[in-house]
Amino acid sequence: MADLDFKLLANAPSRSFNAGETIFQEGDPATESYVVKNGSLQIRIGDRLVETLSDAGIFGEMALIDDLPRSATAVVQTDVDLVPVNQKRFLFLVCETPFFALNVMRALANRLRTQTSV
Amino acid sequence: MADLDFKLLANAPSRSFNAGETIFQEGDPATESYVVKNGSLQIRIGDRLVETLSDAGIFGEMALIDDLPRSATAVVQTDVDLVPVNQKRFLFLVCETPFFALNVMRALANRLRTQTSV
Repeated sequence: MADLDFKLLANAPSRSFNAGETIFQEGDPATESYVVKNGSLQIRIGDRLVETLSDAGIFGEMALIDDLPRSATAVVQTDVDLVPVNQKRFLFLVCETPFFALNVMRALANRLRTQTSV
Repeated sequence: MADLDFKLLANAPSRSFNAGETIFQEGDPATESYVVKNGSLQIRIGDRLVETLSDAGIFGEMALIDDLPRSATAVVQTDVDLVPVNQKRFLFLVCETPFFALNVMRALANRLRTQTSV
């Protein structure tokens, strides 16, 4: 992850969730993506664990480009601080931190390749 | 495609190919993506036609995020003008035309969903 993204993480407003909390569920409306500032969480489809994310991980990125509901559930593993990024904020951030766009694209590509996009 | 992208297409240096020419072949090193300024082209895997692209279409976008060779062949259908976009130019463009990042992400997602990413 590019250095510039750390500036994004340090300065952006974040949202805290406690261990065990559900950030979103499969089928929920999707309006924003998230960057993990600290802590860890799991992405699950049904009972299946598909991914574990920690510091600087990006998830929920499909919300930036379409209006489909969440295709997976995100559950907090250890207390997390997340930076929410909706489309408007994304468009602002890609100018301040252009590598962020590439990082989101990489997350998108990796996830679609493994069929676990959220 | 957002209006801003038309500014990108109008002002950026382009490269011309004639009908029947091959832009790149499966297995070629991939260093840049392209936006179709005008004309049309076909994306083929082996003998199979997987997609036809025309004005404002984006292809070769995987080159922005990884170093893998081309996974398909791009052949000109009617004479085309293409705007080449390498990673450096992409990082510049996403600031001038932020919707461009979302358009590239949409192309990436659609293509990966249909397994024809180039």
